[in-house]
Amino acid sequence: MVAESSPRRRTGGRSAVVLMSIRKAVEELIAEHGGDAVTIPMVAERAGVNHSSIYRRWGDARTMINDLATYRLDPDRGLPDSGDLRADLTAWAQELITHYGKPVNAALLRGGAAAAGGSESDCLRDRRAEAAAFAGRPGSTFTDDQIVDKVVAPVIYRVIFLPWTLSELDVRSYVDDLFGRSA
Amino acid sequence: MVAESSPRRRTGGRSAVVLMSIRKAVEELIAEHGGDAVTIPMVAERAGVNHSSIYRRWGDARTMINDLATYRLDPDRGLPDSGDLRADLTAWAQELITHYGKPVNAALLRGGAAAAGGSESDCLRDRRAEAAAFAGRPGSTFTDDQIVDKVVAPVIYRVIFLPWTLSELDVRSYVDDLFGRSA
Repeated sequence: MVAESSPRRRTGGRSAVVLMSIRKAVEELIAEHGGDAVTIPMVAERAGVNHSSIYRRWGDARTMINDLATYRLDPDRGLPDSGDLRADLTAWAQELITHYGKPVNAALLRGGAAAAGGSESDCLRDRRAEAAAFAGRPGSTFTDDQIVDKVVAPVIYRVIFLPWTLSELDVRSYVDDLFGRSA
Repeated sequence: MVAESSPRRRTGGRSAVVLMSIRKAVEELIAEHGGDAVTIPMVAERAGVNHSSIYRRWGDARTMINDLATYRLDPDRGLPDSGDLRADLTAWAQELITHYGKPVNAALLRGGAAAAGGSESDCLRDRRAEAAAFAGRPGSTFTDDQIVDKVVAPVIYRVIFLPWTLSELDVRSYVDDLFGRSA
């Protein structure tokens, strides 16, 4: 059921340049028009590439946006790992806010939301994998579902619907809540 | 597609009939194509109305979908009010799941998510108004923000990204959490 993310291409040379210009075009167009209004011909024109190479890679605009929305938060970065689980979760939650607080990333996420619902391979699957990694660490008394419900969900809800509230948000209360408000 | 001589005419005459056929067309098209792929010409054709009347009413597809996504959960219905705040919040949360558990409403919400972010008038503003009403009731020790973060956000996150988890969801734990897990 869980679709693997597309195999990471060791990009080099021309295909890396093409991918970079497509990504830049998608980000610009989403920032200008919103994730629901970007089409492959628009992207092809802006990026200066043939639209057939975009269709070949992604099939449709929805899959393209979903894939690029996933990409933006580098899945190869390490998770915070200081040995203090509460501090690590707080740093991670703050990282989510910093990342999705950027308008282009928020717009990509909204585009990803419009494309979601069909399978587990949505643009937030890496965030859920990270939640599962935290849930499995020593000292954790909570499940990945609880991290998703109490930390990921309110951050993502606010990114999508209430982005102007993010700068004031204190993620420590979300993380404290996981620990049952004790200590 | 929709007969204008529909026997189920409602008060409001012709414009109510037109609105009903537009709403039906949008819901069908979103269910078929997703919220990010529905355009005003598609809706006009399906509803059998002139697209200029759609543009006149909403201006663009995004505003139209946002408005219809708001409409679907009847804002005039009463909130649960038994005198037991915990029971009322639980019934309300369950109502959200029942409503958004329907694929057409989930698809409308995803379309609304793609269109959100610009102002507070997104398709979930009525849900936040309801949260504020609950927060103001006697016996409440929590804010509307806490109801949004702990109840609305995880439900909406799951509707958008993990709809197949809704049927198993026990909202009592969300509501219990608002009450500090006591009692």
